[in-house]
Amino acid sequence: MKCEFNVKKSMTNALLSLIMLAGVLTVKGQPPRGPLVISPQVNPDKTVVFRYLAPRANEVKLSAQFLKEQLPMAKDTSGIWSVTVGPIDPDIYPYSFNVDGVTVMDPANVAFFPNERFKASLVDVPADPPLVHAVKDVPHGTVTYEYYPSSEKTTGSLVIYTPPGYDKDQSKSYPVFYLISGTTDTEETWFKVGRTNFILDNLIAEGKARPMIIVMPYGNVAARIAAQTGAPKPADPMGRESADALKRAKDFENDLVNNIVPYVEKNYRAIQTRESRAIGGFSRGGGQTLRSAFGNMDKFAWICCYASYLSSNEMERDYRSIYENAANTNQQLKLFWIGVGNEDFLYNSTVEFMDFLKAKGVNYKSRITSGGHTWMNTKKYLSETAQLLFK
Amino acid sequence: MKCEFNVKKSMTNALLSLIMLAGVLTVKGQPPRGPLVISPQVNPDKTVVFRYLAPRANEVKLSAQFLKEQLPMAKDTSGIWSVTVGPIDPDIYPYSFNVDGVTVMDPANVAFFPNERFKASLVDVPADPPLVHAVKDVPHGTVTYEYYPSSEKTTGSLVIYTPPGYDKDQSKSYPVFYLISGTTDTEETWFKVGRTNFILDNLIAEGKARPMIIVMPYGNVAARIAAQTGAPKPADPMGRESADALKRAKDFENDLVNNIVPYVEKNYRAIQTRESRAIGGFSRGGGQTLRSAFGNMDKFAWICCYASYLSSNEMERDYRSIYENAANTNQQLKLFWIGVGNEDFLYNSTVEFMDFLKAKGVNYKSRITSGGHTWMNTKKYLSETAQLLFK
Repeated sequence: MKCEFNVKKSMTNALLSLIMLAGVLTVKGQPPRGPLVISPQVNPDKTVVFRYLAPRANEVKLSAQFLKEQLPMAKDTSGIWSVTVGPIDPDIYPYSFNVDGVTVMDPANVAFFPNERFKASLVDVPADPPLVHAVKDVPHGTVTYEYYPSSEKTTGSLVIYTPPGYDKDQSKSYPVFYLISGTTDTEETWFKVGRTNFILDNLIAEGKARPMIIVMPYGNVAARIAAQTGAPKPADPMGRESADALKRAKDFENDLVNNIVPYVEKNYRAIQTRESRAIGGFSRGGGQTLRSAFGNMDKFAWICCYASYLSSNEMERDYRSIYENAANTNQQLKLFWIGVGNEDFLYNSTVEFMDFLKAKGVNYKSRITSGGHTWMNTKKYLSETAQLLFK
Repeated sequence: MKCEFNVKKSMTNALLSLIMLAGVLTVKGQPPRGPLVISPQVNPDKTVVFRYLAPRANEVKLSAQFLKEQLPMAKDTSGIWSVTVGPIDPDIYPYSFNVDGVTVMDPANVAFFPNERFKASLVDVPADPPLVHAVKDVPHGTVTYEYYPSSEKTTGSLVIYTPPGYDKDQSKSYPVFYLISGTTDTEETWFKVGRTNFILDNLIAEGKARPMIIVMPYGNVAARIAAQTGAPKPADPMGRESADALKRAKDFENDLVNNIVPYVEKNYRAIQTRESRAIGGFSRGGGQTLRSAFGNMDKFAWICCYASYLSSNEMERDYRSIYENAANTNQQLKLFWIGVGNEDFLYNSTVEFMDFLKAKGVNYKSRITSGGHTWMNTKKYLSETAQLLFK
């Protein structure tokens, strides 16, 4: 090693180091970087330490889907708040910090929950042997962001899983599962939070699922049109069954049937029969699933409905054809699967929906789990239904 | 419409609506959702309204890369802080809110800056005619997340752009540009912030860039190994030229040359000659670019160095072969491009590096722009160099 000494640069470096140690390095025009905070720190015993830097905050709490209520955190002399929790049941959980009443992501954690409204981070508590969503040493499929011509001259985006080996054998075609995420989720949520790709990689490696293409669209067509054309943003998407919500559901169904399915079948080696098309979704995406399937029985033969339902009102108004000739529906549908958690705030509505179907003689497979309206359950439902599809 | 009236459900719905109006809907185990906040609101006159809900905060400021300093925001009676800025020069800018000293993303905005440390959102102020990174009505390439077997039995991830038409003509092969993001950035940053795919789509549509594959790796090999194996997390990645930083640079170079390039060339239709491999990067990724290129001149013939440098010390210690036979280096390199902003905190170091090369007779193309160490500049450098590569 050459020991040339450059006084000017060494002093600059020393100064830079001092500033960095003081935790106030501010690159012009960039957010300031504080001292290094390690969070979350998942320990071998499944306890987890959460840390958050907020020297001026009065109160910081941990909000997490493995907790019944928010947990107070304590501040150390460097202004880092922390709390140790657990042992925690292995799974991937959304969490966030509540800083003086404001919900924020964990800035030290790259794993985030893509969503239009709330910001949450993800903590992965691993199991041994690893869970079905873990990154295992098996052949991996790929996840592709595709851009397709969509409604009102906008460019839509799709996240598409192709199974391991898809690119190897150009003569092989695959069935397609259209999988829609929930209210305020984005086209990335099934990928980043639902771990669709790793779940399928693992199930395919074990021979439990058929290799398939999974297409994850963005459910909020109006928001995309607003973003790209300057049209007004849609109102709060929480409302169900308002005229506006129903119009938007129709917008999605049209986009799916007129734009997305044709785009996928033109650009991917998809088997183009109704028996090779499945549709599924969580929460609002489950409602979109039911409407898109019931409105297009010539296109989809497999339905996976995760924590969602249609009201009897809507069924009677729009989908008489589904239950008035239940025998025909039963014959057409290869699978009609409905899963919900017994603590889900949509549990009662979902059970009412199942009762409605039962009364009309429409067959379905039901799966009642523990837990609420969470992505822990959603991953579970995907893992279970992926093993039933296209068989 | 059928006017069946379900008292129980209507009351439930009414109650739900009231709760939602009050802005305190808390789905069990999920982060609470407040009133709908629209932010950022980009107006036709290029002014932008930023809004942030924080009823209990004492001080909220806007921090953004189009501002010289943070801007105070004002609170309304509903607890929403806001500020109107501009008109702003069209571009995509990172921004965040400073809430009582804590930097947070904009929860109302889906567009985020993937990063290990800081959390920022992105505001897109469009131009007319649209800028080179805009989503235009041109043929679009795709962006794929690939998972490859990496160092120490971990699974690495790559984000890979393939140009429009890549999947159509299976007989065609393409040159590959390996493009590395900066310190604390992730493999997603060139995609989400750098808009690599849209920039290339537009340049290719105008005939200004050759269709190419762009491979965006994750620069922080040690962090991935820590995440997947439970090994200790690396220390603060800001330090340069420490023994640890140099080891990690070597780890990256090894991963690139031994794992990434072979994986890409096995799975993509890549032209497998040094004249068809380019390497480029921003900030730390630029340092990794220089080390990987200088250490593997048999593999790369095109170098793009954005706001980065190697010190004279390191050049003299590790890369004598590059400058001791400058004529040979000049003959081997099809392009050696170095760009930096005159307000960049690495400006002086980069100029020193260029002076070093000049003194040794190593040819390079330099590009000094205005501005700092920002992704506005980085997009500019990518747009410029993409037009020079493989020609």
